[in-house]
Amino acid sequence: MHESVGKEEIMREEQEIENQIAIMLKGVANHTEVSEIREKLREAKKENRPFRIKLGLDPSAPDIHIGHSVVLRKIRQLQELGHIAVIIIGDYTGMIGDPTGKSKTRKQLSREDVERNANTYMEQIFKIIDRDRTEVHYNSEWLSKMNFGDVIELASKCTVARMLERDDFNNRYTNHLPLSVHEFFYPLMQAYDSVAVKADIELGGTDQTFNITMGRNIQRDYGQQPQLTLFMPLLEGIDGVEKMSKSLGNYIGISEEPAVIYEKVMKIPDNMIIKYYNLCTDVHPDEVDRIQKMLDEGANPRDVKMMLAHEITELYTGKENADQAQQRFETIFQQNKVPNDALTILIDPASPLMHGEQMIDFLVNNKQYKSKSEIRRIFNHGGAKLDEEKVTDERSIVIGEGVHILKVGKKNFYKVQLQGN
Amino acid sequence: MHESVGKEEIMREEQEIENQIAIMLKGVANHTEVSEIREKLREAKKENRPFRIKLGLDPSAPDIHIGHSVVLRKIRQLQELGHIAVIIIGDYTGMIGDPTGKSKTRKQLSREDVERNANTYMEQIFKIIDRDRTEVHYNSEWLSKMNFGDVIELASKCTVARMLERDDFNNRYTNHLPLSVHEFFYPLMQAYDSVAVKADIELGGTDQTFNITMGRNIQRDYGQQPQLTLFMPLLEGIDGVEKMSKSLGNYIGISEEPAVIYEKVMKIPDNMIIKYYNLCTDVHPDEVDRIQKMLDEGANPRDVKMMLAHEITELYTGKENADQAQQRFETIFQQNKVPNDALTILIDPASPLMHGEQMIDFLVNNKQYKSKSEIRRIFNHGGAKLDEEKVTDERSIVIGEGVHILKVGKKNFYKVQLQGN
Repeated sequence: MHESVGKEEIMREEQEIENQIAIMLKGVANHTEVSEIREKLREAKKENRPFRIKLGLDPSAPDIHIGHSVVLRKIRQLQELGHIAVIIIGDYTGMIGDPTGKSKTRKQLSREDVERNANTYMEQIFKIIDRDRTEVHYNSEWLSKMNFGDVIELASKCTVARMLERDDFNNRYTNHLPLSVHEFFYPLMQAYDSVAVKADIELGGTDQTFNITMGRNIQRDYGQQPQLTLFMPLLEGIDGVEKMSKSLGNYIGISEEPAVIYEKVMKIPDNMIIKYYNLCTDVHPDEVDRIQKMLDEGANPRDVKMMLAHEITELYTGKENADQAQQRFETIFQQNKVPNDALTILIDPASPLMHGEQMIDFLVNNKQYKSKSEIRRIFNHGGAKLDEEKVTDERSIVIGEGVHILKVGKKNFYKVQLQGN
Repeated sequence: MHESVGKEEIMREEQEIENQIAIMLKGVANHTEVSEIREKLREAKKENRPFRIKLGLDPSAPDIHIGHSVVLRKIRQLQELGHIAVIIIGDYTGMIGDPTGKSKTRKQLSREDVERNANTYMEQIFKIIDRDRTEVHYNSEWLSKMNFGDVIELASKCTVARMLERDDFNNRYTNHLPLSVHEFFYPLMQAYDSVAVKADIELGGTDQTFNITMGRNIQRDYGQQPQLTLFMPLLEGIDGVEKMSKSLGNYIGISEEPAVIYEKVMKIPDNMIIKYYNLCTDVHPDEVDRIQKMLDEGANPRDVKMMLAHEITELYTGKENADQAQQRFETIFQQNKVPNDALTILIDPASPLMHGEQMIDFLVNNKQYKSKSEIRRIFNHGGAKLDEEKVTDERSIVIGEGVHILKVGKKNFYKVQLQGN
């Protein structure tokens, strides 16, 4: 009997480890060999200790959008499995910054500035990862204590040839663009962070492959077990083409209004649905497989996308807000059957013209109606609705965030949006 | 009247500066533009301060021979002109050592070891340069105080491309041989030494061109006036072909016996006479010109070489010793007319055979005499002289340093020398 219980126990543990691996690798672009991950998970299990998941952060990073969240969500999923996030604020690394070809070192921020930046940033991050299972360090803790000799020791761990394999270094060196010796230290310092916090695993975007792999090698050189590495794909923005970024306007901010998040998700192309499920939600990989199957079997992508939009909105604003956003979307867009090619009226919030007036100008300039007086007449007679509410006086209109629907008469639909929103 | 005195004064000062430049550049292979040297000398004169002449030393260097002395003699000449030597013992740089392709950093010597090495080394150096006009520093004074940020700042002053222009770096990089990032710091640290001691001028062999020029550039980056640079040619050994080095056995040690120094100088090829005058003596450039002229006009090179040998022997052992060495040379080599192609008997000091016995073996093995008993007979009858003294019993022979002459009968001459001497 005993033996059989032991076997069951082992089976159960092995299953749990395989489940952890499945969750760990969901949507991942590249990673350490599965056999090494399995081995390390078994060892940690045996020693009854969680993984230390390293995440290095540049405190000068902008507001967080779901492009950034890809890595953070993965960490959250690993935290749910019992592991610990070790966040490293790169205050010391920030002196150099990830190299961009500038020959000068950055001006060092004051301690106060660094901490203020870091706090703002952490507030956002804790919307995704679990504060209670997170350790926070500044890398000045260890880097500022290193003397010239320690730096030399660190630099001796990497060859120039290896360093010049980094794409941007190689490009600049080959094209005779300036590349200063100190820039080699960004990857080296970041790698040393892994030694300092004894990282078991480090996550990053595929654009961090060089730096994170360096961490693995440097740990080995300092006599530590090398960290596992997980590289997440870069997420396309809602246009489905370019990498998500604030400057391209194709981003979904994690602090945006529920309705805005919901609507933005609804804009992604159908071929992005599964990728967003994998990278922007915590939905279990088995469930994602089922959704893929649904799509394969002919489910309407719009319905699936609504599930996705609800899922993502709920993650950042809670279930109730997600429900409301969904209801609003259904009311405005679906029940009215707003055509996909409806014209969009962009409202300039900086213009001296009132929002209603800008709408009327747009409709006349785009030959939708003959004259402003014609439109005003329709408005006065109750023939226009903004988000299902009658507008009788255009002066009362104030457009907020997100997409709004102007319906004129029975069948003319227009989307209305603030510029840059 | 006044005006005319002022003019004379200026003329005199200008002449003195031109004289300094002539002494400074005697035998130099490469140097900063003369106009810049002149300008800097004028400024120093105006501020009534001597030049600070930097000399970096690796405390692991071996016994000093006159190959090393080339740079030291130049410094001595500059000291005679009123300038100050600033010697930097590279105790901190020694951690890396001038890169040779080793991927490990050197084990740091204990403070005691470093100081003992340095003291032994300095004792030799002070046979050449003037102790009273010398400042001595260890570069750990400033380098050990640098933190990671300071190191980054230093590294930012040089591009990777510039660094890879250094011949040995370039060769290793191009040929896929290991070149570690930390090796870049040897030139950078050495360059920073110039900043730390505010060097006005740095001297070195032509093989130090990269490092010393880096010092000039880094001083500029740190807002200092760049140091002047003087590069001395590498001195051929007494074979007149290979660079002088202990391992090749073609060296003249500055602590050798007067007779040995004298004889070794006498061995150099005639075409090396002027180069040795320029690099290994403090003879004024005008005087060297006269000697050149003497040779051009048909003077016997052997006579000139004897002047040179006396000059160099006197530098390291004093006039009396030089006179004696010269006399000995004349007695043994000239009066006896020892042929240049006389066979050399090498005595192995580690052999269990006595020196005399080894000599007899050599003479028989080389078919000079038929048998050992024949030689012994000649010895017993007073027919052999070692350095002009009769040897009647070969067991009494003990060969010391330097070249000795064995004369057997009236006309058979042999040089006798210890192996490796």
